[in-house]
Amino acid sequence: MSLIVQKYGGTSVGSTERIHNVAKRILETQRSGNQVVAVVSAMAGVTNRLIEMANEVSPENEPTEREMDVLLSTGEQTTIALTSMAINALGGKAISLTGSQAGIFTDGEHTKARISNISPDEVQRLLDEDHIVILAGFQGSSPDGRITTLGRGGSDLTAIAMAAAINADLCQILTDVDGVYTCDPRIVSNAKKIDEISYDEMLEMASSGSKVMQSRSVEFAKKFGVKFEVKSSLNNNPGTIVTEEHPNMESVVVRGISIEKEQAKVTIENVSDEPGVASKIFHAISDSGVIIDMIVQNVSKTNHTDISFTLHRSDLKKAKQTIEPMLANLGENVEMETTDGIGKLSVVGIGMRSHSGVAAQMFSALAKGGVNIQMISTSEIKTAVIIEENGLEEAANIVHEAFNL
Amino acid sequence: MSLIVQKYGGTSVGSTERIHNVAKRILETQRSGNQVVAVVSAMAGVTNRLIEMANEVSPENEPTEREMDVLLSTGEQTTIALTSMAINALGGKAISLTGSQAGIFTDGEHTKARISNISPDEVQRLLDEDHIVILAGFQGSSPDGRITTLGRGGSDLTAIAMAAAINADLCQILTDVDGVYTCDPRIVSNAKKIDEISYDEMLEMASSGSKVMQSRSVEFAKKFGVKFEVKSSLNNNPGTIVTEEHPNMESVVVRGISIEKEQAKVTIENVSDEPGVASKIFHAISDSGVIIDMIVQNVSKTNHTDISFTLHRSDLKKAKQTIEPMLANLGENVEMETTDGIGKLSVVGIGMRSHSGVAAQMFSALAKGGVNIQMISTSEIKTAVIIEENGLEEAANIVHEAFNL
Repeated sequence: MSLIVQKYGGTSVGSTERIHNVAKRILETQRSGNQVVAVVSAMAGVTNRLIEMANEVSPENEPTEREMDVLLSTGEQTTIALTSMAINALGGKAISLTGSQAGIFTDGEHTKARISNISPDEVQRLLDEDHIVILAGFQGSSPDGRITTLGRGGSDLTAIAMAAAINADLCQILTDVDGVYTCDPRIVSNAKKIDEISYDEMLEMASSGSKVMQSRSVEFAKKFGVKFEVKSSLNNNPGTIVTEEHPNMESVVVRGISIEKEQAKVTIENVSDEPGVASKIFHAISDSGVIIDMIVQNVSKTNHTDISFTLHRSDLKKAKQTIEPMLANLGENVEMETTDGIGKLSVVGIGMRSHSGVAAQMFSALAKGGVNIQMISTSEIKTAVIIEENGLEEAANIVHEAFNL
Repeated sequence: MSLIVQKYGGTSVGSTERIHNVAKRILETQRSGNQVVAVVSAMAGVTNRLIEMANEVSPENEPTEREMDVLLSTGEQTTIALTSMAINALGGKAISLTGSQAGIFTDGEHTKARISNISPDEVQRLLDEDHIVILAGFQGSSPDGRITTLGRGGSDLTAIAMAAAINADLCQILTDVDGVYTCDPRIVSNAKKIDEISYDEMLEMASSGSKVMQSRSVEFAKKFGVKFEVKSSLNNNPGTIVTEEHPNMESVVVRGISIEKEQAKVTIENVSDEPGVASKIFHAISDSGVIIDMIVQNVSKTNHTDISFTLHRSDLKKAKQTIEPMLANLGENVEMETTDGIGKLSVVGIGMRSHSGVAAQMFSALAKGGVNIQMISTSEIKTAVIIEENGLEEAANIVHEAFNL
C-alpha cells in the first residue's frame, strides 16, 4: 500500500461535473490499494470573482490583506466540501479539512504566507481510519489563529509540504498538461514529454517561463526531497517525474528549452565603474516592486560601463520612472535606453556541467538561422539568450532541432 | 458608551453596494460612541446556490451533512471579509471572525447544531482595542474542531447568544421591515408598529406565522434575558423592542394578530376513547417528519371520539399516507377526513391573562362578519381559530378593528 498525495488545480475542479470526475479518480486511486490525500484548489474563476467583489467594496484602497485571506480561503473551502460530498455519493469515505484543521501553520504574512510547520496528526488519524482526506490548498493558519493564504502556486506548495510531512510515497500534481515537455508543444510541434527531470532543471525551466509550476514549490520539494509527478488529470498516461539528480540524468546534455515572451530591456550607459553604483540602481528597482530577470554588465574599458537588465514588459514603465530621476547621480554622461519587443530563449540541462560546448552549439545554430543575440546569461545548467520577440518561436524550433530533443 | 450587537440579514448584505451601506451604518453606530459587534448572514441567494451545487455532486443521496456545513459556512465567511474590508475602506477599524474564531462552540449535530457555550475572550479583546468585530452568523465549531451550522434562523441566534455572552446593552436585529406589527400591513392596511412586546407574545406571534424571527432565537433571548430590537436596516426609525414582561404591558389586552395561510386539517372520527390511541397516532406522524400545529380533541359521549389536527398543506399527503394503514387498528368504524383550504387566525397578548372575554369578543366579531369557526385552540396568551382560507384576510381586518389595534 502506498501513501499518495494528489493535487487538482482550479480547471480540474472548475464545475460540479468536473468535481464528480475528480472524485471518481481519487476514489479509483484509493481502490487500487493506496491511502490518498487530495489537495484541491478553488474552482476556476471563483478567486477572480472574489477579488472583484473585494475591489468593489474597497474601491480606493487595496482591500485589507487580513480580510483578503478570509475571503479567498472560502474558494478552496467550497471545493473541499463539494469534492468530499461527491466521493461520498460514489460510495467512498471522504473527509474535508481546511488548512487550519489540517495543521498547516504559517507565518502571519497575509496573502503571501510561508509555511512554518505542519502538524499532520489529524490527517494521519483520518488516513488510519481509511478515510480519503480532501485538503484545502493555498491556505493555512497563523500562530494566533488567523486565516492565511500562501500566494501564487500555493496549492502545489500545500501538496508538496503535506507529502513531506506525512512522508508520502508519491506526490502527484494533476494538471491540464501531460507533463513537462522539451519545449512548449504549441510552439515546437515535435516537442517530447520528459520522463524524468531533476529539481534543478525543473527550477530553471520554471524560472524561464515553462509555467507548469511555480519555482517556489519545486524549491520546497528539493529542500525536503519530495519526489513528485506532473501529470494530466484527464488521462492515465505517465507524466514527468521530478526528483533528485542521479548520474544517469547527465547523459542528456540539454533537457529542455523554454521561452519567455513579452520581455523588455533597460540599459544604463556610461555609469562610473566604481563600487556601489549597481547597488544603488538595483535597490531602487527592488523598492519599487519591479521584478527583474537577467542582469548583464560587461568589463569596463574607460572607467565607465553599461549595465543592462531585463524585466517583464508590463513593468517597464515603472522601472523607467524609478531610474529617470537617479540618472544625474550616476555619473556625467549617463543615459538610459529601453527596448521592448524582445524575448528570452533558454536551454536547460544538468548535463551541461560535464559537457562543454553547449553554448557554442546553441549560438552557432542561432547564427545559421540568422537570429541576432542581444544578451547572453548563463548559469551552471542553463544558457539563456535575449533575442527579437518576433523570431522567438522560430529560434526555439531551430535550437530544439540542433540538440535533437 | 454602550455595547451593541447588530445583526444584518442576507437581503441587507445582498450585493457589494448593500454591503457598503451596511458598513457605513455599522461605522456610524460606532462613531456615535458605541462598541459594536455586527453579525452578518450570507449574501442573499448564495446559500441556495451552494445547496444547488451540493445536490449536483450528490444527485442520488443527501449530501453529507458534515460537508454541507463546511460548504454553507463559506457564505457567511465571504460576507464577514467583504464587510470588514468595506468598513476599513471607509476609514474604520474592523476585524472579521468566523464562528470558530469567535469562540462559538456547539454540539456536533451538523446542519442544525445547538450552541453549547461561547468563549467571548477574543471578541472582548478586539472590542477593547477599539475594533469593530464582524462576526459570521449561523456557524460554530464542534468540540473536536469541525465546522457546524445552526440551521434556520441561525444568524439571529448568533447575535442574541453573543449579546448574552458579552453582556451587551442592546441587540439589534436589522431586517427589511420596520419592526413587529399588530398584523401584517399587506393584509391590514392600518396595522401599527408595536413599540414594545414581551418575549412570550413575540413567541406566539412567531409560531402563528409572523415570521420576523424564528421562535428559537426568541426563546434563547428569553432564557438569557437579552433585550433586543427588531428594526429596519434601511432607515433609522425606532423598531420594536422585545423584552421581559413588565406590569405596564398588561394594559394592552391584545398585542397583535397573526395569520397563517395554506393550512390543512385531518380529522380521525370514531376512534376508541381509551388510553394510548392519541399517542399511537401522533408518534406515527412525528416519525414521518410531518410537523403539526393545533391538536383538538373534544369530550367523548359514546366511548368514541374525534381527534383533529392541523398542519401545513404541503404535509397533508404525507400525513394521509402515514395514517391510512393505521385506521383499522384504531377501532371499528374509524374514518379519516381531510380538508385543505383553511387558515389560522390568532390574537396574542399577555393582557389576556388578566382580562376575561377576549375569546368571546373575537368570536362575536367573527360571527357578525359572517365568518364560520371550524376549530378553536387557546393558550394562556393566545386564542386561535381555524377558518376558511378565502375569508382569512377579511377576518383579520374585522378582528383588528374589533380590538382597536
